[in-house]
Amino acid sequence: MEVIESLQNTKVKSWKKLHTRKGREKAGQFLIEGVHLIEEALKAELPIKELLIEEEKETPHEWKVLNLSEVYVTKKVMKEVCETETPQGYAAICDLPINKNILLEKGKFLFIDGVQDPGNLGAMIRTADAAGVDGVILGDGTVDLFNGKVLRSTQGSAFHVPVQKMNLEEAVQLCRDQSIPIFGTSLTGSTYNAIEPQENFALIMGNEGNGVQESLLELCDQNLYIPIHGQAESLNVSIATGILLYHLRG
Amino acid sequence: MEVIESLQNTKVKSWKKLHTRKGREKAGQFLIEGVHLIEEALKAELPIKELLIEEEKETPHEWKVLNLSEVYVTKKVMKEVCETETPQGYAAICDLPINKNILLEKGKFLFIDGVQDPGNLGAMIRTADAAGVDGVILGDGTVDLFNGKVLRSTQGSAFHVPVQKMNLEEAVQLCRDQSIPIFGTSLTGSTYNAIEPQENFALIMGNEGNGVQESLLELCDQNLYIPIHGQAESLNVSIATGILLYHLRG
Repeated sequence: MEVIESLQNTKVKSWKKLHTRKGREKAGQFLIEGVHLIEEALKAELPIKELLIEEEKETPHEWKVLNLSEVYVTKKVMKEVCETETPQGYAAICDLPINKNILLEKGKFLFIDGVQDPGNLGAMIRTADAAGVDGVILGDGTVDLFNGKVLRSTQGSAFHVPVQKMNLEEAVQLCRDQSIPIFGTSLTGSTYNAIEPQENFALIMGNEGNGVQESLLELCDQNLYIPIHGQAESLNVSIATGILLYHLRG
Repeated sequence: MEVIESLQNTKVKSWKKLHTRKGREKAGQFLIEGVHLIEEALKAELPIKELLIEEEKETPHEWKVLNLSEVYVTKKVMKEVCETETPQGYAAICDLPINKNILLEKGKFLFIDGVQDPGNLGAMIRTADAAGVDGVILGDGTVDLFNGKVLRSTQGSAFHVPVQKMNLEEAVQLCRDQSIPIFGTSLTGSTYNAIEPQENFALIMGNEGNGVQESLLELCDQNLYIPIHGQAESLNVSIATGILLYHLRG
């Protein structure tokens, strides 16, 4: 059994380049870590190009039958390639999926305007999946979906719910054309629970510090606000997303 | 101006010990980092014993007039004492507050049963504050409130909302004595939005992996469940807390 040991190995160098958005886009690939995320990728029939396994580990039986291209590496190499502190011993290199077109005709949608924190974006996509959202649109300036921390925080939901990059003004226009009600979020909005649950909607959540861009808020049918009853200055954006999505879907 | 430069300085060593629960309890003190958290501590009139300032930084004017005991340290010492990757140049040593008794007579309460992740606990306390909860009870096995990451994640709410450690079976019994309805959370519970908003309630949220202990669930008036409409396996516990607290308070 051949085991890659050197951090200077060209494969190792190419895998590490997948830590950045630029590297991922150039290679057309991304990296996932850990058993759970690899299982979710397999379930979603994502094309796994290489399965990286730490030399001491066994390939799980369910993966063996898939005839994946296995590459054994030392613990040191695995730690270099992975971004978590204590890698689980398994990682995979996948092809970046073609940007699918989400049909904004009817359904429940989450639009994300410039969320920066990977943990927040991941939690928002996981929550959108739980709430049965039909698609998530990532506006300009939002952290990359294929960032390792985003993928880990989605806990697999990145592979369940359609996610697409799109300019949000265009996305809002498409919703307007189909009479899908569009709800922004703003400190000067209406109290969210004055709104009835909706069959179809697009909810726009904004950047952690600045919220939704003013130019987008102006295009919304209504802007919503979650009242703060105590002394907290704000809610975390992923928690606000959960409260609003579950309220709107009813 | 005297500046502490050595990592071997006894003060530096004693501050570092505040990174662990054991060290905090032994010293009767805890450590906070960053301008925002120090401001929140001052607003809450927490006794700040020492203000640590990086040698290049100025003490903000509003803090100067308070005559805090200032200690200047080098950038290297600040990095050693702080737990964040890029410290902001300010930290403070505070006395641990006396465990206040939360009166479980009437009001809205959040009970936390064994949540392990500091970021989750912090987000839950911040959300409880936003939802106007009257007190948060930390059951046995829950991560320590004065853990640095918990405090940072609360964004100051740890100093706004009363938080107390208590055995949850005792806390539940106290609520029962006062006829405060107690809601557990369980995969076999009722759909949460079948329940009307409540004037008084205690909501119990459980550990990330195992949920609320069975023995506690049996003591609840009703157990609640947030339906998963998509393919996600679960919701993050802090997001579930937001959805339930905001629903229950109405």
